[in-house]
Amino acid sequence: MSDRLFIFDTTLRDGEQVPGCQLNTVEKIQVAKQLEALGVDVIEAGFPISSPGDFNSVIEISKAVTWPTICALTRAVEKDIDVAADALRYAKHKRIHTGIGTSESHIRYKFNSTPEEIIERAVAAVKYAKRYVEDVEFYAEDAGRTDNEYLARVVDAVVKAGATVVNIPDTTGFRIPMEYGEKIKYLMEHVDGLSAGKAILSTHCHNDLGMATANSLAGIINGARQVEVTINGIGERAGNTSLEEVVMALKTHPYLGIDTNINTTKIYPISRMVSSLMNMPIQPNKAVVGRNAFAHSSGIHQDGVLKNAATYEIMDPKDVGIDDNSIVLTARSGRAALKHRLHVNGVEVDEERLDKIYQDFLALADKKKDVTDDDILMLAGADRSENHFVKLDYLQVTSGMGLRNVASIGLKIANEKFEAAATGNGPVDAAIKALKKIINRTMVLKEFTIQAISKGSDDVGKVHMQVEYDGHVYYGFGANTDIVVASIEAYIDCINKFVTK
Amino acid sequence: MSDRLFIFDTTLRDGEQVPGCQLNTVEKIQVAKQLEALGVDVIEAGFPISSPGDFNSVIEISKAVTWPTICALTRAVEKDIDVAADALRYAKHKRIHTGIGTSESHIRYKFNSTPEEIIERAVAAVKYAKRYVEDVEFYAEDAGRTDNEYLARVVDAVVKAGATVVNIPDTTGFRIPMEYGEKIKYLMEHVDGLSAGKAILSTHCHNDLGMATANSLAGIINGARQVEVTINGIGERAGNTSLEEVVMALKTHPYLGIDTNINTTKIYPISRMVSSLMNMPIQPNKAVVGRNAFAHSSGIHQDGVLKNAATYEIMDPKDVGIDDNSIVLTARSGRAALKHRLHVNGVEVDEERLDKIYQDFLALADKKKDVTDDDILMLAGADRSENHFVKLDYLQVTSGMGLRNVASIGLKIANEKFEAAATGNGPVDAAIKALKKIINRTMVLKEFTIQAISKGSDDVGKVHMQVEYDGHVYYGFGANTDIVVASIEAYIDCINKFVTK
Repeated sequence: MSDRLFIFDTTLRDGEQVPGCQLNTVEKIQVAKQLEALGVDVIEAGFPISSPGDFNSVIEISKAVTWPTICALTRAVEKDIDVAADALRYAKHKRIHTGIGTSESHIRYKFNSTPEEIIERAVAAVKYAKRYVEDVEFYAEDAGRTDNEYLARVVDAVVKAGATVVNIPDTTGFRIPMEYGEKIKYLMEHVDGLSAGKAILSTHCHNDLGMATANSLAGIINGARQVEVTINGIGERAGNTSLEEVVMALKTHPYLGIDTNINTTKIYPISRMVSSLMNMPIQPNKAVVGRNAFAHSSGIHQDGVLKNAATYEIMDPKDVGIDDNSIVLTARSGRAALKHRLHVNGVEVDEERLDKIYQDFLALADKKKDVTDDDILMLAGADRSENHFVKLDYLQVTSGMGLRNVASIGLKIANEKFEAAATGNGPVDAAIKALKKIINRTMVLKEFTIQAISKGSDDVGKVHMQVEYDGHVYYGFGANTDIVVASIEAYIDCINKFVTK
Repeated sequence: MSDRLFIFDTTLRDGEQVPGCQLNTVEKIQVAKQLEALGVDVIEAGFPISSPGDFNSVIEISKAVTWPTICALTRAVEKDIDVAADALRYAKHKRIHTGIGTSESHIRYKFNSTPEEIIERAVAAVKYAKRYVEDVEFYAEDAGRTDNEYLARVVDAVVKAGATVVNIPDTTGFRIPMEYGEKIKYLMEHVDGLSAGKAILSTHCHNDLGMATANSLAGIINGARQVEVTINGIGERAGNTSLEEVVMALKTHPYLGIDTNINTTKIYPISRMVSSLMNMPIQPNKAVVGRNAFAHSSGIHQDGVLKNAATYEIMDPKDVGIDDNSIVLTARSGRAALKHRLHVNGVEVDEERLDKIYQDFLALADKKKDVTDDDILMLAGADRSENHFVKLDYLQVTSGMGLRNVASIGLKIANEKFEAAATGNGPVDAAIKALKKIINRTMVLKEFTIQAISKGSDDVGKVHMQVEYDGHVYYGFGANTDIVVASIEAYIDCINKFVTK
């Protein structure tokens, strides 16, 4: 029988404290509702004493969600606990998360205290929190660097004082999995209250050395039954453990015998939502949720994927809510991938013809970073670009500071010319508004990413866009030294995908 | 005594095959020279049979670097090996990296073969490669999902055939550290040639579940003496093991007894170079090299860092070539951080005054995502913005497709007005050229990142820039619904940092 692991999401507390990631209360409620739909067990909603906004967010999140436990963070200080309990007053299931630093460095430098006094303060805080709520979690800050024997005494004391969950944070992200796993094992073996089922241990790992996920997993394997995670692994410095990585590691390794309540198909949507609301880009090679996470490009791999997806895939993109595993053509792509791509575009070729196109393709791919469908159709003598329904004829934008942004645009649609002009909030907005005067459909810009332009101000800017139309999302790409032109090209690319469909 | 671990960098092979990451030969040589300066032992320079560009790159990289071994990838096919040996002809130290899939899925679906036949092909390939070079590495593709007993037979056979390194790739990124470590341990114990020192094992881990670094470390702890890595962990799908993470994990854990030849202070510069050349953004919370990797923002943490850096830091940013550990003020920041920030800006306040400013600060921070130095100086009644040396007065840009981009700009410098106009290659380029007509100094734009604008075309765009002047790099930030204005604001922010210095 599988063991149940509790997922404690701290995106809205430990994640949200990152520079530039602060959300307003409305945005926090959006995220909290998605976390509820995702199936997390506990939502850490804030640190109420830290600011009036945080206090209010805990109140509003408590009202907005029903079944997850709402947790509020405090220091081991009575006033913090009073304020947290107050902020939790509307929560259906409530938890206070209190704690204190237990490592030598924390005891000595931060608290100017002694190990015995820290235990007294820990016990007092847990007992005080118990006056307000049944469910009290204790964190032993910097547990990762705390001596195991002393840590076991702290855990034993707080469990006896009534803590239901004890959090063992690797606050500095220092531990390697072997060590973190051993620490959890040591505690499981040396604290009677844990084996007696009076409390569970929780992992809280940071990613400073890139090992947060592996450390959390080592903790679970050795007996922890709660993991503290964030969406996309956001958090201070190198961030926290990624919810999506831990959950998918457990799902792909059913023989570990650990179940969660997560509906994995909601992972990708919430990942995009958090990235977008917090303005925190996800790198393309991020595990599970990065743009390339399921994209294959090398010849060897593509050939394998085309023969049997299991050859190179351990997860089905659909399991995390992504629609397709895109094969991208590059200089490393093999014949099989080229043939597949031609087939997808409706062009069938025999082996001899394929060989010829393949040689041309390799020569082109050496020059060009991305080989598009249009390029290979051109190589196959089936240039589609002439048939593009919408083409950019010209674009003129005047923008700046202290003046109104205005754009005039010319489009060729099925070889007929159309013109329009509009003002807007910035040059891209003006240009898109002008375009929409010509193409009068209900299109919603869902995502708009400008890729890093790193080599100077006259380098090519790349724009990725997603436009929703009639319930479907279409992806478009544009590249130009003028980022405004690149943006409009990407928008038109989206439009062509649905008008030619 | 410490054991020596060899660092095998495959940024230019496994990393470079990612969609959009292809480099031209000149760029590859730049990266290869930096890898040499960083101190890697082996540079995998390409897969020569795969394309004419790859073949040529291996030749040119071989000529450009001196002491690292240059490695070329092949399949277990004679023609591949012939071409690889040819491409390596100028390398001072050369290695051929050949191999074949060994998992059941690869043997059955990809090769339609049998386990015995695969061993024969493996041995034949190694022997064939040995005719050209002394140093032959063999990869057992999908070793992660290959049965250990069979894998040991493969390793034994190729070591007997003369392989000097045997690579155990977790091709699909499926393994967890415990399992990968056990696999390496099993091989070390069951292959005589390894214990006899005839060959070493190499790890090659992928990050699909976020565990590449931890898996590599588990491999090292169990006896592997080479790791295959890429800068920033780039690579197909979720990428490869990050060089910087493994190297810093070993450096921060000297008791593991493993040394590398890496000069860690070169890590940050090469990380930026690779990100920039490959147009692959690094997410802010990337371990070791992300923008936030050393940034502290929560009140509890900031207080600790100010008291003693060791409280929250396990690495000195200087060790990886980063200049400072920036403390950023947010709604979670404590009094100590605010006081420190005021102090850095030359404002000293007593505790009572600090309390007052702190309350205003919290109210502001709840509304504003980033609280800047200017904001807190304003709160402290010491508004610096009036004294900004350079201020943007107005900006007008006309840009588009089918016309010349032109910008006119007005600057206030020490309250005197200046104007200029220029044309350029895109609107930002034109505006910067106009600005440079007024501020006539040798400034080089080193980095230019436009942050994802995700909520629609009229959302605020954020621009981060780095400008080099007089041997120092200055960071600037701008935010505006007009991305061209935001870019110029960021540029001016950089300028103000050095003119007011």
